Amino acid sequence: MKNQDIQLDSQGRLRHFLTIEGLKKPVLTDILDTAENFSTVGTRNVKKVPLLRGKTIANLFFEPSTRTRTTFELAAKRLSADVINMNISTSSTTKGETLLDMLRNLEAMHCDMFVVRHGSSGAAHFFAKHVAPHISIINGGDGSHAHPTQGMLDMFTIRRHKPDFTALRVAVVGDILHSRVARSQIHALNTLGVPEVRVIGPRTLIPAEPDSLGVHVYHDMKEGLKDVDVVIMLRLQRERMQGALLPSENEYYRTYGLSREKLALAKPDAIVMHPGPINRGVEIESAVADGPQSVILEQVTNGIAVRMAVMSMVLGRPGDEQEAG
Amino acid sequence: MKNQDIQLDSQGRLRHFLTIEGLKKPVLTDILDTAENFSTVGTRNVKKVPLLRGKTIANLFFEPSTRTRTTFELAAKRLSADVINMNISTSSTTKGETLLDMLRNLEAMHCDMFVVRHGSSGAAHFFAKHVAPHISIINGGDGSHAHPTQGMLDMFTIRRHKPDFTALRVAVVGDILHSRVARSQIHALNTLGVPEVRVIGPRTLIPAEPDSLGVHVYHDMKEGLKDVDVVIMLRLQRERMQGALLPSENEYYRTYGLSREKLALAKPDAIVMHPGPINRGVEIESAVADGPQSVILEQVTNGIAVRMAVMSMVLGRPGDEQEAG
Amino acid sequence: MKNQDIQLDSQGRLRHFLTIEGLKKPVLTDILDTAENFSTVGTRNVKKVPLLRGKTIANLFFEPSTRTRTTFELAAKRLSADVINMNISTSSTTKGETLLDMLRNLEAMHCDMFVVRHGSSGAAHFFAKHVAPHISIINGGDGSHAHPTQGMLDMFTIRRHKPDFTALRVAVVGDILHSRVARSQIHALNTLGVPEVRVIGPRTLIPAEPDSLGVHVYHDMKEGLKDVDVVIMLRLQRERMQGALLPSENEYYRTYGLSREKLALAKPDAIVMHPGPINRGVEIESAVADGPQSVILEQVTNGIAVRMAVMSMVLGRPGDEQEAG
Repeated sequence: MKNQDIQLDSQGRLRHFLTIEGLKKPVLTDILDTAENFSTVGTRNVKKVPLLRGKTIANLFFEPSTRTRTTFELAAKRLSADVINMNISTSSTTKGETLLDMLRNLEAMHCDMFVVRHGSSGAAHFFAKHVAPHISIINGGDGSHAHPTQGMLDMFTIRRHKPDFTALRVAVVGDILHSRVARSQIHALNTLGVPEVRVIGPRTLIPAEPDSLGVHVYHDMKEGLKDVDVVIMLRLQRERMQGALLPSENEYYRTYGLSREKLALAKPDAIVMHPGPINRGVEIESAVADGPQSVILEQVTNGIAVRMAVMSMVLGRPGDEQEAG
Repeated sequence: MKNQDIQLDSQGRLRHFLTIEGLKKPVLTDILDTAENFSTVGTRNVKKVPLLRGKTIANLFFEPSTRTRTTFELAAKRLSADVINMNISTSSTTKGETLLDMLRNLEAMHCDMFVVRHGSSGAAHFFAKHVAPHISIINGGDGSHAHPTQGMLDMFTIRRHKPDFTALRVAVVGDILHSRVARSQIHALNTLGVPEVRVIGPRTLIPAEPDSLGVHVYHDMKEGLKDVDVVIMLRLQRERMQGALLPSENEYYRTYGLSREKLALAKPDAIVMHPGPINRGVEIESAVADGPQSVILEQVTNGIAVRMAVMSMVLGRPGDEQEAG
Repeated sequence: MKNQDIQLDSQGRLRHFLTIEGLKKPVLTDILDTAENFSTVGTRNVKKVPLLRGKTIANLFFEPSTRTRTTFELAAKRLSADVINMNISTSSTTKGETLLDMLRNLEAMHCDMFVVRHGSSGAAHFFAKHVAPHISIINGGDGSHAHPTQGMLDMFTIRRHKPDFTALRVAVVGDILHSRVARSQIHALNTLGVPEVRVIGPRTLIPAEPDSLGVHVYHDMKEGLKDVDVVIMLRLQRERMQGALLPSENEYYRTYGLSREKLALAKPDAIVMHPGPINRGVEIESAVADGPQSVILEQVTNGIAVRMAVMSMVLGRPGDEQEAG
């Protein structure tokens, strides 16, 4: 089954948001434009619009995440929706059967949307495949598969600084192999027409067939950063340090950490991004993270606008299955 | 002290909802009729009515329960009340003295209603007995004593399919002895005039004096299911398996699990109910749980309407102690 | 840096509320008068005012506290603000660096106010010092330093019973040395003009230089209680019992517990206060805690009005940095 089939309704409008892969450029641009409208809500005196009043949004977090959960909760509340937070230990839902029963129960409570974060790749798809027609699923991160709202808030942030995607050279640095964030970013960058997407990292952390991703691979960071417009640093999952995949933090920083010195190889007006939370001195130098080229905190702000956009788009489709519930 | 004394106000209206035992038929019918009015709220575009705006409802859960807590929270939010969730480990409130102090503090914060779930039978009564006159207590399940909102949502579900209680034969199957759900169901069925209530289960799991409950006891499920209109399966508490009370899951399923074969003994239009979450293959066959006679998910939906009904009834009594706060 | 500098805006209005120390009497009186206005909200039929609609308040609790968190949450909701609860284990933010990054992220989400409770003295100050100009910090208790909203709710409670602070003799009894509550109370009592503030406790639990606090020290409780108008009991931190600082609970009660007998030494119309939760039979006799002179539950009620007052004052300053966000 194609992702676009399940993500779009009969009129081609976004119904779930599971992955950026397979979505056409106009859909992505629509999300960015809608987010632009919401980007001023956060600075208003009354940070609230009544768009989703009386809707029920359930945050189903099978993986702990204060940060992402908070931005989804804030986005929902600023849209005036009612939010239910459910932190679910995966141990209580090990059998797929039980997960489905939980889904059916939440459906029966007339929830309108589930934001799902899960440690297994494909969890959000599983929900979308089985959910009742009037309910929308937003993927809040599934395994090493996708984190599409993160991908889109990154695109939003890039566009604010570099409006023409077709003129950009973008580098994504770090553990590409295991990163759902990288995967979503790369799909978005390609779809939006970025002509040159580079990935930079050690051989152990780059997917085996990078060509299929539409990226250029660099193992030497200095080479890879040369003349790029955007540097996206990934968060280093320290737990992977335990295994044989990575050398010490010090060595990692020396080779793939973003220092002022390395950043100087990019274009002078290059922006620096990171999905957070940052490991200072491991993947990024503090002087860079807090420096004039960093847009890391803008990403956080934009994350709420983008999540409001996606939530309002999937729930605000008049005349569709929406009514069938 | 009679339950009806403490549950009703001076004008005979519901003030607390602690147990179905002792309530008269008109009160139960009133709950069902009120729930009928709320049953459409969940399918509206704006799932919200302003009835309890500005009221404060505290969910006091001394026993963990995502499911029941969520339905109470949704019911409260759809009535526009403010909800405070408090998950309280019983270890910190072992002394009754401390529990009372906690109660007095929440009163002082001008909460209007406590939804109480507690592992000890009588906990909700204890709260109701000691609470200030302007506060209402809803029992969200206390020990093996009562779970009255579950009982009423089951009655609501039955009435939707079988409008005349006085023409019904109903069987409740499983661990009757330890089930607060069964106890509440049996009281409701008797009060609403069901002429034949059967309980089916092994000798070890049926109360010693079933006559006082007003039920007929069957140990042979095939006999007990014969010609019934409603089959209510109870959830098997797997932890009881550890003791000597129950044989293996397999043997339990063979003897008291609801298979298609056994269900065929009931009336052809009999409905199948279960308070959830279900243990597939233990107390019920998947083909039955998901089959055309199952109304298990309707029960979940109805649970919100019934809880909205009870909440609005106890808090919306003009001219009573309500004002005295 | 003076506290008043950081707590007040350029026009002398309250911008953060970190400590009572250094605030002038008119500011404290303003809080009390504003709280007086909010004190009726809790008894209204609709317990809600729209003052902070569309504002986002984040409860950052690094120390567990159901009780204080609940009163802040209720205060915020009754002001119609949106509330985000974040229970943060200090283990995940051991490095000040990480704490700052967390702060920057919450700022970027356009929160308007952080209520901070933290085990380390100075944590709320740290936040206030580094926070963006449009955000207000309320100290919900930091280490053994300050608990200013508790201090002010105590002043509010005293004023309701004894309107003239300049005519009062007040005794604070217990572990003065480690109590942030005592510290805030003493600063408030002195600033509001109470001519005689006494502290009563064992030598091990009184600060080394009590003169600097502006208090009179008593080690004999019977002497210290003589003719006082207000008796404030502190909660005994039982964990301190483990060390050598304190004798047994029984002995503590005999020496510094408030019994009816000892209370008889105070003025006949003296009021008895306690920040809660009380340890019955350790620092206070039940007959006193529940007796006619006790105003302990009024303190809880007043806590919500005082917190509403502080929240509305710091967020409702038109024409100030507020707009600069």
